[in-house]
Amino acid sequence: MNTPAPAVSPGPTFLDRIRVVLSHTSHPGNIGAAARAMKAMGLSRLVLVNPKTFPDPQATAMAAGADDVLANARVVSSLTEALSGTTLAMAMTARRRELAVPALWAREAAAELVAQAAEVEVALVFGNETAGLSNDELAQCARWAMIPVNPEFSSLNVAAAVQLMCYELRLAALDPGRPPAISGAGQLASHDEVEHFIAHLERVAISSGFLDPAVPKRFNPRMRRLFARAVLEKEEVAILRGLIAALEKSAGKT
Amino acid sequence: MNTPAPAVSPGPTFLDRIRVVLSHTSHPGNIGAAARAMKAMGLSRLVLVNPKTFPDPQATAMAAGADDVLANARVVSSLTEALSGTTLAMAMTARRRELAVPALWAREAAAELVAQAAEVEVALVFGNETAGLSNDELAQCARWAMIPVNPEFSSLNVAAAVQLMCYELRLAALDPGRPPAISGAGQLASHDEVEHFIAHLERVAISSGFLDPAVPKRFNPRMRRLFARAVLEKEEVAILRGLIAALEKSAGKT
Repeated sequence: MNTPAPAVSPGPTFLDRIRVVLSHTSHPGNIGAAARAMKAMGLSRLVLVNPKTFPDPQATAMAAGADDVLANARVVSSLTEALSGTTLAMAMTARRRELAVPALWAREAAAELVAQAAEVEVALVFGNETAGLSNDELAQCARWAMIPVNPEFSSLNVAAAVQLMCYELRLAALDPGRPPAISGAGQLASHDEVEHFIAHLERVAISSGFLDPAVPKRFNPRMRRLFARAVLEKEEVAILRGLIAALEKSAGKT
Repeated sequence: MNTPAPAVSPGPTFLDRIRVVLSHTSHPGNIGAAARAMKAMGLSRLVLVNPKTFPDPQATAMAAGADDVLANARVVSSLTEALSGTTLAMAMTARRRELAVPALWAREAAAELVAQAAEVEVALVFGNETAGLSNDELAQCARWAMIPVNPEFSSLNVAAAVQLMCYELRLAALDPGRPPAISGAGQLASHDEVEHFIAHLERVAISSGFLDPAVPKRFNPRMRRLFARAVLEKEEVAILRGLIAALEKSAGKT
């Protein structure tokens, strides 16, 4: 591994554009340990989605000096809120789930996040200690990543997972020679642009009578999952929304 | 990453020849967390040099199921004893000391340990939480290694350091191959189904006035590219086509 002096490396700047999102964390100690793990690797932006207990003395104790990361942590009530402003969200998952594209390994995931962080805001998302991320949360993430573990004992503490990923992110950020991993020809759409598109899609699904608002079933999460997999580009969202708007108009539903 | 089948890989055997040595650990919780970190990465041989408290309920609690690693842990009274039978000892050090030999980075250190473990017993040595390893202990290790950290905050928990090193050892010993190929939630749509969907999409794009049939621009190839990336499932195509049909109908275009 070549080791450029952190002083001259653009890495740290990249790390500033990466937010670590902990969703529904049960144990405040894990939040503190995660903050310490982040700071030791040069990351600072922590977002907490509905933490069970925060702030908490246990979190502060486990932070062991990373108090500033805890003090600056944003507490929000939904993953959607946590991802607002990001362009790429990477979900960490331990279990095999329904997934139409293969997950990335930790190291590839870090390279992709850092490559994107050169230009846009990205997020790395960790779920609850026992339940992990919900399917709806996973559906909001364009990429899913896994840490290689012993198949007979895959139990990784969430703070340990944060530690491993932040370590890989630091190495990826300090290593200049990584090609961008995302194939997107055009500029990627932001999380909010995708959310607005899906909301628009749901509106016309209802106005056209296709979807019964009383019984929306899984339309929204399903579309989220589909378009998250596609990793939409700005121009594609513009085309799709333009098409939907035209259909609304021709249906006299505007 | 190239992908040898884990079954035929010698990796696990290599990991069995690597012992993790924790010297003068103060907090039993760290011993338990280290055991869990080891087992999750496929390592099992823990050696404790004068632990302050062991066994201890906190260690068992933090092991979270890696009880066998704790149960089989050897407790010895000196590093010399811990290293008996090994051919290569790698000392983990956080501080820059008067280095006899230049320290290796974590990843390089893991590669060297695994390479040696192909034939001989090796050890990875971690010091006390606050004092680290004594100069006398360091002198007993042929190699010294460091984990790259944020120079402004280099505080790594000892169990976190064990986690990072065991992760690097696992990757060095056993290329994980591709992440588990997870089959889609539903059956994937056939090429024809996707083509018919895109043709349908183009029809409504024209009928709604969104697309000028004289100047179709890149609508069709663009949608192809988008939905190819998403890897559509049969049910998703059915939903999308149902939605389009409903929009056509409500537009009185049927």
